[in-house]
Amino acid sequence: MSLTRKQEIIITASRLFKERGYNAISMRDLAAEMGIKAASLYNHISSKQEILGLIILKVSEEFTQHINTIYLDELSSIKKLEAIIQNHIEITLKYTHHLACMNNDWIHLEDEYKQRYLNLRNEYESKFRQILQQGKDEGELKDIDLEIVVFSVLTTLRTLHIWYAKKTSIQVATLQQDLPKTLLYGIVKS
Amino acid sequence: MSLTRKQEIIITASRLFKERGYNAISMRDLAAEMGIKAASLYNHISSKQEILGLIILKVSEEFTQHINTIYLDELSSIKKLEAIIQNHIEITLKYTHHLACMNNDWIHLEDEYKQRYLNLRNEYESKFRQILQQGKDEGELKDIDLEIVVFSVLTTLRTLHIWYAKKTSIQVATLQQDLPKTLLYGIVKS
Repeated sequence: MSLTRKQEIIITASRLFKERGYNAISMRDLAAEMGIKAASLYNHISSKQEILGLIILKVSEEFTQHINTIYLDELSSIKKLEAIIQNHIEITLKYTHHLACMNNDWIHLEDEYKQRYLNLRNEYESKFRQILQQGKDEGELKDIDLEIVVFSVLTTLRTLHIWYAKKTSIQVATLQQDLPKTLLYGIVKS
Repeated sequence: MSLTRKQEIIITASRLFKERGYNAISMRDLAAEMGIKAASLYNHISSKQEILGLIILKVSEEFTQHINTIYLDELSSIKKLEAIIQNHIEITLKYTHHLACMNNDWIHLEDEYKQRYLNLRNEYESKFRQILQQGKDEGELKDIDLEIVVFSVLTTLRTLHIWYAKKTSIQVATLQQDLPKTLLYGIVKS
């Protein structure tokens, strides 16, 4: 299936924003990169802000929809955490540029876009915290301060796309196997 | 022991740089904050760049000296990793503003300062990697991809100061106990 012109705009913009930052890119730059006239961009999209909003909300919604589904599944909390880590790896591979935009430029979202992004982010963190609490309550997870675990695991997952962009020598299969080990089961032999 | 005027300058500057960024602060701002004349700053320090260099090299050297000492100690690799984590917690508590400057403004270091910082950082990472390799070779650590562990553990340790500045409700003793557990032994009950 070929991409719509709107999808092409978003993909090109996410790469340009990633390389030079949201503020440095004009609609004119974007049009030039696509080999079209700036005016014709506006047949598909209303503003640069709308593009940024679509890029960031796309990945935010994928993360939050996934955790909402997992949260309700009949799985142990450990299986849920494993699924969450695999989802982060998958989105990292699929939406590298989108994640870089989210990381660097979410602060430039305005009004409703920013509010929607922050709501999705809070919802994600809240579900993540509840899954950890479930694991502690059911005796699957150790009695470790919840906020320390949230910080440590989410920091690693949220930074994954930056690190992985520089480490392409590591096989995806290795990442899928060793990242959950590192984050959930520890690096020390028992 | 009272602080020297030079130490006062560095402490005040690290707070101002942290709050508003290196580029936004002038020597005049710094002097005003200290209630002295800008000209008299130069009796103690040659430039704003020197101040940034002293702030960042201070903590970089503490980190690298500590890991160099630990590296040579007659300890198991696990004990070495535990000591490294405790050292990160200690420096985080002692030099919160210095770490924020390092994190945000190391990119503004020039010439020799930048080279010295990057050398210290590389030396630190190299020793950290060697300690992990020792642990794998001696069968104390699991056979997990070394680069994934370096990434995950160092990302958490390097971000600790940002997170902890917002989470002062967590006791230091809890952090000292639960952060090594999370990073080394995992969160899943065995």
